[in-house]
Amino acid sequence: MTTVGMLLFDGAEELDFVGPWEVLTASSMLRELDGAPADTVVTIAQALDPINCAKGLRVLPDHTLTDHPALDVVLVPGGEGTRTEMNNTTILEWLAKVDETTTWTTSVCTGSLIVHQSGVGKGKRLATHWVAEDSLESLGDVEVVRDMRWVVDGKVVSSQGVSAGIDMALWIVGQLYGPDHARKTQHYIQYDPAPPYQAAI
Amino acid sequence: MTTVGMLLFDGAEELDFVGPWEVLTASSMLRELDGAPADTVVTIAQALDPINCAKGLRVLPDHTLTDHPALDVVLVPGGEGTRTEMNNTTILEWLAKVDETTTWTTSVCTGSLIVHQSGVGKGKRLATHWVAEDSLESLGDVEVVRDMRWVVDGKVVSSQGVSAGIDMALWIVGQLYGPDHARKTQHYIQYDPAPPYQAAI
Repeated sequence: MTTVGMLLFDGAEELDFVGPWEVLTASSMLRELDGAPADTVVTIAQALDPINCAKGLRVLPDHTLTDHPALDVVLVPGGEGTRTEMNNTTILEWLAKVDETTTWTTSVCTGSLIVHQSGVGKGKRLATHWVAEDSLESLGDVEVVRDMRWVVDGKVVSSQGVSAGIDMALWIVGQLYGPDHARKTQHYIQYDPAPPYQAAI
Repeated sequence: MTTVGMLLFDGAEELDFVGPWEVLTASSMLRELDGAPADTVVTIAQALDPINCAKGLRVLPDHTLTDHPALDVVLVPGGEGTRTEMNNTTILEWLAKVDETTTWTTSVCTGSLIVHQSGVGKGKRLATHWVAEDSLESLGDVEVVRDMRWVVDGKVVSSQGVSAGIDMALWIVGQLYGPDHARKTQHYIQYDPAPPYQAAI
């Protein structure tokens, strides 16, 4: 059984956390149907007030920073709100503490700026949204990987922007429960991407 | 300027609506940066109470069925909750009425069962999640398209399961604002899918 916590804050980008949320909860549901114990996937924020996401969706957190189950996997989304949260010492100290006992510490998009600032991402190879690669590099003590959809450095896994969290989360599911189960999860969320307008005509 | 309403109900599948939400709000933000008026993208539910989504995320609706802006685009997500909502006459009558003045009436996953039951999808070619194709067909007066990621029949657009809504929403953005802008939106959400474990080894 795996416990996953997703950090929320005002200005968190919606798909950054809902993509991985869908992957990890679908994985859990499928395992439960096979008789395995369910995983726990929860949202965590500094307070229980509704979160105003970057693009306006309003989400209720399940837990506060000081009252949540022990996490095997923590996920830090990106979004406009990271500009504030990367300097929020309460969040940064929380993440550094949580990281001490996680199996995987992960981020999507500009969430890697928070991971870096917490100390967890210092000296690591990290990915981020393409608009933020220079900003991340300017923080120093980091190798920004600009050409990979997600990057694994020890137990720190960071993905590129927004939708990349879906691929990263599927990879994590495969690490936890094997490639076959990850593919089953992919099939359940019918993830056979077919972006339109791929030809310039 | 386009107004988009996403129907929410208990048991709505998270990624079904958050994928298109991200696409449509990102499109609006990018247009605004170019000096165009912002679109309006809102969530709509029968009541303003928190929605308990299919996989446990809790979301606050913006509007009720009787108090929302006129919609150019309506989106009906799928999820476990469609089993109930496909027989909810309040929802069905609302959707039929909204459809009278939309440019596009859309669904993701098992949302097409609601679209069908409302009358809007009767006699149409519709897509749905692979687990629900037989169920949709058994409703009668519908041609279930089993091999396309999304299906356009007049102004009714329906996609396959969960993640397919992202592709469908990008297609809608291209119809509204042109392929170039759709590709710009795709680039912003960094949608260059790279699902892991594609080789059986």
